Amino acid sequence: MDDRLREEILKYHENGKVALEVTKPLADQKMLSMAYTPGVSEVCELIKKDSSRAYDYTSKANTVAVVTDGTAVLGLGDIGPEASLPVMEGKAALFKTFADIDAWPIALKKMYFPDGRCDIRGLVENIKALSPGFGGINLEDISAPSCFDIEDILDEELDIPVFHDDQWGTAIITLAALKNYLFLSGKDISEIKVVINGAGAAGLRIADMLKADGVSECLLCDSKGIITTSRSDINKFKKRHAVNVRPGKLEDAIRGSDVFIGVSVAGCLKPEMVVEMNEFPAIFAMANPVPEILPEEVEKVLTASDHVMATGRSDYPNQINNVLGFPFIFRGALNVRATKITMNMKKAASEALADIAREKEVPEKVKRAYGRDFTFGKDYLIPTPFDPRLNEVVSRRVAQAAVNDGVAGIDKC
Amino acid sequence: MDDRLREEILKYHENGKVALEVTKPLADQKMLSMAYTPGVSEVCELIKKDSSRAYDYTSKANTVAVVTDGTAVLGLGDIGPEASLPVMEGKAALFKTFADIDAWPIALKKMYFPDGRCDIRGLVENIKALSPGFGGINLEDISAPSCFDIEDILDEELDIPVFHDDQWGTAIITLAALKNYLFLSGKDISEIKVVINGAGAAGLRIADMLKADGVSECLLCDSKGIITTSRSDINKFKKRHAVNVRPGKLEDAIRGSDVFIGVSVAGCLKPEMVVEMNEFPAIFAMANPVPEILPEEVEKVLTASDHVMATGRSDYPNQINNVLGFPFIFRGALNVRATKITMNMKKAASEALADIAREKEVPEKVKRAYGRDFTFGKDYLIPTPFDPRLNEVVSRRVAQAAVNDGVAGIDKC
Repeated sequence: MDDRLREEILKYHENGKVALEVTKPLADQKMLSMAYTPGVSEVCELIKKDSSRAYDYTSKANTVAVVTDGTAVLGLGDIGPEASLPVMEGKAALFKTFADIDAWPIALKKMYFPDGRCDIRGLVENIKALSPGFGGINLEDISAPSCFDIEDILDEELDIPVFHDDQWGTAIITLAALKNYLFLSGKDISEIKVVINGAGAAGLRIADMLKADGVSECLLCDSKGIITTSRSDINKFKKRHAVNVRPGKLEDAIRGSDVFIGVSVAGCLKPEMVVEMNEFPAIFAMANPVPEILPEEVEKVLTASDHVMATGRSDYPNQINNVLGFPFIFRGALNVRATKITMNMKKAASEALADIAREKEVPEKVKRAYGRDFTFGKDYLIPTPFDPRLNEVVSRRVAQAAVNDGVAGIDKC
Repeated sequence: MDDRLREEILKYHENGKVALEVTKPLADQKMLSMAYTPGVSEVCELIKKDSSRAYDYTSKANTVAVVTDGTAVLGLGDIGPEASLPVMEGKAALFKTFADIDAWPIALKKMYFPDGRCDIRGLVENIKALSPGFGGINLEDISAPSCFDIEDILDEELDIPVFHDDQWGTAIITLAALKNYLFLSGKDISEIKVVINGAGAAGLRIADMLKADGVSECLLCDSKGIITTSRSDINKFKKRHAVNVRPGKLEDAIRGSDVFIGVSVAGCLKPEMVVEMNEFPAIFAMANPVPEILPEEVEKVLTASDHVMATGRSDYPNQINNVLGFPFIFRGALNVRATKITMNMKKAASEALADIAREKEVPEKVKRAYGRDFTFGKDYLIPTPFDPRLNEVVSRRVAQAAVNDGVAGIDKC
């Protein structure tokens, strides 16, 4: 990164990115005695009798905790809670900007045993302890594989929605892009062959979501190659996706596949592997900042019209960006006081995103923000982050799915 | 409380009192990539190398957690974390309004053993876990006596200031009022006899602060009477203040005293007890909402000019109100990145409050806010909450005391 941009970024971050806003006037002695003692005790007594009234008379209903332990921050690894704060504040700012959710960054001390393993129960208890004031918990940048159990236990033991964005966020947007690739290509979801490279939090959940939506042939690869049933070096989470095929590397997996999904490392997909894929393949190369293969590398072996390409970057078409998901998923969940974020709610978000991109017209606001028009097609498979339809459509569809699944506390759809 | 006021209070509290404010623009793709990935990783890497840089590039430096377990909320007792939220939000709103501090309400699940005792270590660990993102911890409405150990352990084990307002807040304002009572009466602090009725969090810390400032004769009473060395029914915290006198009740303690300080229950100080006090006594009757004795009751036995009176109420002169303290104590502590709030910092706050009230002129803003002028004297011993001098003078003097005590991370006085 050049020094000038670096300086600009540091300047932008001075004193942080979030603050408290007081939403009720506090200008004189009377307001003081309503907001605080003695008047406030009326509100406390009401909630004491029925704790669900906290949704009516406190900020809980619109508030999400953005919780990390700083163990897997971006691609930087275990950098600790303080160093993770800029990301948590950024996430909080996105929640507020895109979906008017009051998200607060909570960077927790790492919990671990003397032997270095994550103390999953300890972390879970810390998060449960602070949960009463929040309407939802967005887990963030917690390392795999402990993140799976942490989310599962919290989901089971808390009555507010819990969502680990590193697991599900990318999966939801990827499924949206895949749906529109299928629409464009005319291929059937049950007949495509998908290769996912990278078997961490994102890769495993992408496999879960794609299978839940109808993909039947799906090979996962990690750094050692294809995850097969014959491998003994894989954890229980990878084992769920192990397939009974001949052991091999990514280059073996990719042969005859329709879709490559990379949540792995820069440059691992070679042009000579791309040419082994089926006709009109989709390449979602989402390693950041440098993808598994650059679009210009693909175009050396395939013409632009012969394939579909997506990355995690904003300077190429089809950015698979989590910000298309989490603000609106939580908006929908909070709107109906959902107690969980079910698979159907996640699938509803993917479908809504795919549908938005296929609409004939994009709003004027989007054209202005990006200085150009967008037409559905191989270079516009999914909406852009500043699209105002996201907060209407995605949120509504997620809320409806919550109601349908019987996890909504109220029905405001 | 009449129904109309109750309705007004509930209406005021609808959807809570606090929200998130995004302090940096987030209007286009470029800002998105600075606030979040990929740009934000520059900031993370900087803080990873030196965690103190979180004070420069995140909101930590100006952020306080308002933490409760909901076990001793106002006079309502153990009402649980959800029901405590309106108070925590109120406190957060006061922090922001009076001292521009970003305080976030954190209502923790109660930690207790099967036998009902507070799991002090468990609560401490929960608070320590969430501390990295905050510049200070304001403990609130945690029941005595566990609150003493909880504050002590956190103070010892954390490198950010920890302050339990229920312990120290009232004590600091009370000492300010006492100082100006001494100024008016010409009595010497080392020669007065003080009776404190109520030996909970506030009463015990009032005793600590008064003794630290020079009071030598101080009798504490609890519901069973004077806390004497002969009593076997008192905990270690009360024992510290036990005196070797004949056992007795409040009516025995009050005889020949100069100052009555009530942090106890309505109506327990009788007019016939007041007449047994020394000449020109001070009566600080702070039970809420109904004080230990009403000012009009005192005036039945003493003329207005024969005594000094303070309460916890805003509809009588001399309101002993914690809001005169905590916002500015934390403002001062945060300004110099204090690692602790020492006794000298607390005393500096008391002195600053006493000094402000003795100044000849009150600011125009105060006159406007209250629709009248204030002159130092028996009916104006301490400043009013909307006095803009509080945030200048109290904060500066607290910060200076932190520097003097060697607990300041930076010297910005």
